[in-house]
Amino acid sequence: MKSRRSVLKKFLKTTSLLLMCSLLLTACGNLQNSSLSSGGGDTNKTSVQTTSSSDSSSYDVLLSGGKYKTSPISGLTAADNTNQFNSRSFESGLMSLSKKQFSTNNYVFQEGQVLTASKVVDWLGRKSKSNPTGLNPKDNGSKDENKRAPMYFQQMLEEDYLTKQDGKYKLAGMSIGIAMNKIDYYQKKQYGATYKTSISTAEQKEQGERIAKEVVKRLRANKEVGNIPIVVALYSVAPQDTLVGGTYFQYSISKSDSLGSWKDLNYRNQMLPTVNGENAINSSDADAFANFKDHIQNYFPNLSGVTAQAKYDGDTLKSLDITINTQFDGLAQVTSFTQFVQQSASKYLPSGADLDISIQTVDEQQAFVTRSNGKFTSHVYDAD
Amino acid sequence: MKSRRSVLKKFLKTTSLLLMCSLLLTACGNLQNSSLSSGGGDTNKTSVQTTSSSDSSSYDVLLSGGKYKTSPISGLTAADNTNQFNSRSFESGLMSLSKKQFSTNNYVFQEGQVLTASKVVDWLGRKSKSNPTGLNPKDNGSKDENKRAPMYFQQMLEEDYLTKQDGKYKLAGMSIGIAMNKIDYYQKKQYGATYKTSISTAEQKEQGERIAKEVVKRLRANKEVGNIPIVVALYSVAPQDTLVGGTYFQYSISKSDSLGSWKDLNYRNQMLPTVNGENAINSSDADAFANFKDHIQNYFPNLSGVTAQAKYDGDTLKSLDITINTQFDGLAQVTSFTQFVQQSASKYLPSGADLDISIQTVDEQQAFVTRSNGKFTSHVYDAD
Repeated sequence: MKSRRSVLKKFLKTTSLLLMCSLLLTACGNLQNSSLSSGGGDTNKTSVQTTSSSDSSSYDVLLSGGKYKTSPISGLTAADNTNQFNSRSFESGLMSLSKKQFSTNNYVFQEGQVLTASKVVDWLGRKSKSNPTGLNPKDNGSKDENKRAPMYFQQMLEEDYLTKQDGKYKLAGMSIGIAMNKIDYYQKKQYGATYKTSISTAEQKEQGERIAKEVVKRLRANKEVGNIPIVVALYSVAPQDTLVGGTYFQYSISKSDSLGSWKDLNYRNQMLPTVNGENAINSSDADAFANFKDHIQNYFPNLSGVTAQAKYDGDTLKSLDITINTQFDGLAQVTSFTQFVQQSASKYLPSGADLDISIQTVDEQQAFVTRSNGKFTSHVYDAD
Repeated sequence: MKSRRSVLKKFLKTTSLLLMCSLLLTACGNLQNSSLSSGGGDTNKTSVQTTSSSDSSSYDVLLSGGKYKTSPISGLTAADNTNQFNSRSFESGLMSLSKKQFSTNNYVFQEGQVLTASKVVDWLGRKSKSNPTGLNPKDNGSKDENKRAPMYFQQMLEEDYLTKQDGKYKLAGMSIGIAMNKIDYYQKKQYGATYKTSISTAEQKEQGERIAKEVVKRLRANKEVGNIPIVVALYSVAPQDTLVGGTYFQYSISKSDSLGSWKDLNYRNQMLPTVNGENAINSSDADAFANFKDHIQNYFPNLSGVTAQAKYDGDTLKSLDITINTQFDGLAQVTSFTQFVQQSASKYLPSGADLDISIQTVDEQQAFVTRSNGKFTSHVYDAD
């Protein structure tokens, strides 16, 4: 424990804070039982350069001092969770919610630059004498799955939204994602077996609201933030064994000191075909996908898998991310197959949903088909 | 040798001819010194179903008996060559040449169904008493790099073009790709070191023309083929250590018995940035690419590589296939980077060339940007 702290402190003095922190945290596992001291701030110089989106529904992105700036807190996590689907949806979900508050026409985006890694490492830790700002509960001494105090707060994300004022980009809005565990994975001893503590939906909500309130209070104390609107959203981390990412379950817009009222979100993700006898969220969507899958498997030999992540808002299917694994990579066959997939998607899949279909072999991406706002695009790699 | 033949014969009786043959050939290495007996024919039943191209510059593809049919000779090679860039350009180049003769509006495409695997295995072998149809020269007994008779003929590709006649699709045109080695890799003893025999451009041309003439003669003897037009094209296989694929160097259109006159092709591929002090085919294109590369590397940290395959027809740059390796995979950063790549490509890269830009991490494809006929398309994976 001591060596971990001293190593971190030493590195905090170096300039490449972000990289080092993520390396360190990867190396050290997680913060389950550790507390780490807080480091310094981060000054944020902005230049006028942006990468412009070709699409008005996406943000332009600020390049600071000519370079893209990553957030120093990116990738910091409290406990282990190997579900790779969480990280993208944690990011993309917060950006989608942000668009309701910060118009893509008026605001440019930058990864969060206000919160520092050392500060967030402390916040993600357990509260203790040596870590008074920890937002996870004190260790109650128990290692029992049902009696211990679990790590509720798993990860944090900051997104900054800037507007041009008097020729300069200034921070004008912020979004904060707070990832809450549904299952907390832990070891009773180092390198030991993994145990898990389940967290109820009610607890997730209660603890998430507590943490959000405290985070906003701390942010408001920062001069740079002051009274700008802050979107705070609570995300439920998907357990390791699911093949879909987590979802945001509620959000609030803080316009001044208070947090504002919470609004429920009803996003749900489901893997298709469903596994372990799970019921389909919507059986007609599941049937449509099964028909699509049968149709293409019937006409093309050597398809080793056709699966989808279905994303719902309430009962409405918003999108299907489909992965098709093939064993062929000949150009003519891939090209023909891509045409056929597009035709079949158009014929069988629910017409309202956006589609993102990846056609790949074990080695590499071969082609894709997308449908966005009803319009299909497809591409075969290296087709000349 | 004996066991290889008997295993092949046994498998030839099974229905899954294609799969088995390619497995077998992979397992057995190559045909350098082997001869394999010829097998039976392949009846070709066609149904009216096609996969339709959404784009008039691509062929519709015939689905035979409801399924996509692969060519039984696909992947058969005479000698070892591990250059992965050859296979795609061998296919795509022949299809491009075919479009000049067989209009995409009138013909549908099917992978070659006339030539059988066993026949082509024989043709790719050395001529010998037991393999009278071998199109590679007799073994002259020498193992010396400069004295031995090299394997000239490396691989063969058949593409079928069909038209609808009286409600049925019938074979109406054919294209044959003949891949000629520039360097023949061989072992002096099994599992021994690899040696190589270089083949001059003049020899490649002379031998290629000899082989093409014989192949067309043999095809014309097949009733199914009869007098349909046959596009025959000679392809120079790129050596193993180049990072680009080979190119077609001449072609001819046989309209009846004779081969027709040869037309030269002047395609050239080059890796950018150039390696080993090689001169750029066109220094202003190479400079443009260098500027593009510098520009994006300057603004985005953690780019581990930016390389291109430049494809020329004579002195005209036709296309750039660019691969950008990054170490980041956060959604916001990938999205911003993709926007920036498109802007930079539009600003720096030669405006006439088609672009195919892949943005990837070691693990997976992250995004792509293409420009075809001056129109940009881009896509970020899993962006919701």
